[in-house]
Amino acid sequence: MTQRVRVQNFTISRDGIGAGEDQTFEHPFGHVDPGELMAWAFGTAHFPGRSDGAGSRGLEDYFTRDFAQGIGAEIMGRHKFGPQRGPWPEDDDWTGWWGEEPPFHTPVFVLTHHPKPSLAVGETTFDFLDATPAEALAQAKAAADGNDVRIGGGVSTVRQFLEADLVDEMHVAIAPLEYGAGLKLWERPEELEDRFHLERITAPSGVEHCFFWRR
Amino acid sequence: MTQRVRVQNFTISRDGIGAGEDQTFEHPFGHVDPGELMAWAFGTAHFPGRSDGAGSRGLEDYFTRDFAQGIGAEIMGRHKFGPQRGPWPEDDDWTGWWGEEPPFHTPVFVLTHHPKPSLAVGETTFDFLDATPAEALAQAKAAADGNDVRIGGGVSTVRQFLEADLVDEMHVAIAPLEYGAGLKLWERPEELEDRFHLERITAPSGVEHCFFWRR
Repeated sequence: MTQRVRVQNFTISRDGIGAGEDQTFEHPFGHVDPGELMAWAFGTAHFPGRSDGAGSRGLEDYFTRDFAQGIGAEIMGRHKFGPQRGPWPEDDDWTGWWGEEPPFHTPVFVLTHHPKPSLAVGETTFDFLDATPAEALAQAKAAADGNDVRIGGGVSTVRQFLEADLVDEMHVAIAPLEYGAGLKLWERPEELEDRFHLERITAPSGVEHCFFWRR
Repeated sequence: MTQRVRVQNFTISRDGIGAGEDQTFEHPFGHVDPGELMAWAFGTAHFPGRSDGAGSRGLEDYFTRDFAQGIGAEIMGRHKFGPQRGPWPEDDDWTGWWGEEPPFHTPVFVLTHHPKPSLAVGETTFDFLDATPAEALAQAKAAADGNDVRIGGGVSTVRQFLEADLVDEMHVAIAPLEYGAGLKLWERPEELEDRFHLERITAPSGVEHCFFWRR
């Protein structure tokens, strides 16, 4: 099986916004409320980390239950890991937003111009790389043990990998919201139709799910 | 995690027909053409056994890629295994429709009033049981090693498990076809709404996907 590079469950507003620019420790998505933006995913039975047995088991549960399947590594941007800018503080004890057991359970490569030593949190290892998308992907593929590589976001990271034409398939959820400002993935999904098949379907939740795979 | 009992990717026509009654060795679905009925699934990249890298990776691929995930055993009716009726022939060398490597890769329990010795085909083991649905399910759960149990069909077997209220979740695909006669799952999906949440969505293929999970 060929290793594939996948974007999964990446959620934006109708006007293409995936997060605000005003990120802080308290507000990882800035002025965008992730509970509102990602409501479709939080409501499913298989949202990562959920163990209460509740949640929907309809269409959208297939997307969250697929999150870890066949994935051997993730690449994320520095601002998905934390809100710090510039050199890391000397007394840095930040381990990400996810507590003691992050939902990745694989090597995670964090793109940053300020590399620092690797960090193990639960079953996840964070490696900090100053690398191009292609260089980072080569490392992630080697670490993924034959499995696929997830491009985990944020918006800028997904854009970079799309611009470098390194993405094989992508699921973008468009929530029925408009933010007006923030980090924008695209003007319209059709921009990618020259390179990708595009299938679109609106779930009963009102969220439109877009599936892209290489032509 | 609780073990769940699941029906997956079970496909019927608009008039509820999952197979014809006139089954033979050459026509496992009788007058129903499985290539036509299941066209939505055969066209996906993750249809079991497919390895050519082609196929769609849109919405419906999530359903076929979920086929084996978290499944530890299957229960099927005798006529999913083969077209024989009554006692098995003395020179019986039938090993199912699936060749040397059936797509199950788990223990499979075949319900029949004519038990016979177990059969190993590739990574799949077929056990032949004369048992009620509840008895068969107890054996399948024990064999599933903590994973879920698939109720694999055919129509009569799914109906029996629904009547015994042993199904936790079910995905039924309704193909845009009408057969008029044959083995019928239901008159209408709404029949099950007293016990199950029901979510319905029509894919670009024209197939309506119904998701049921217990209330």
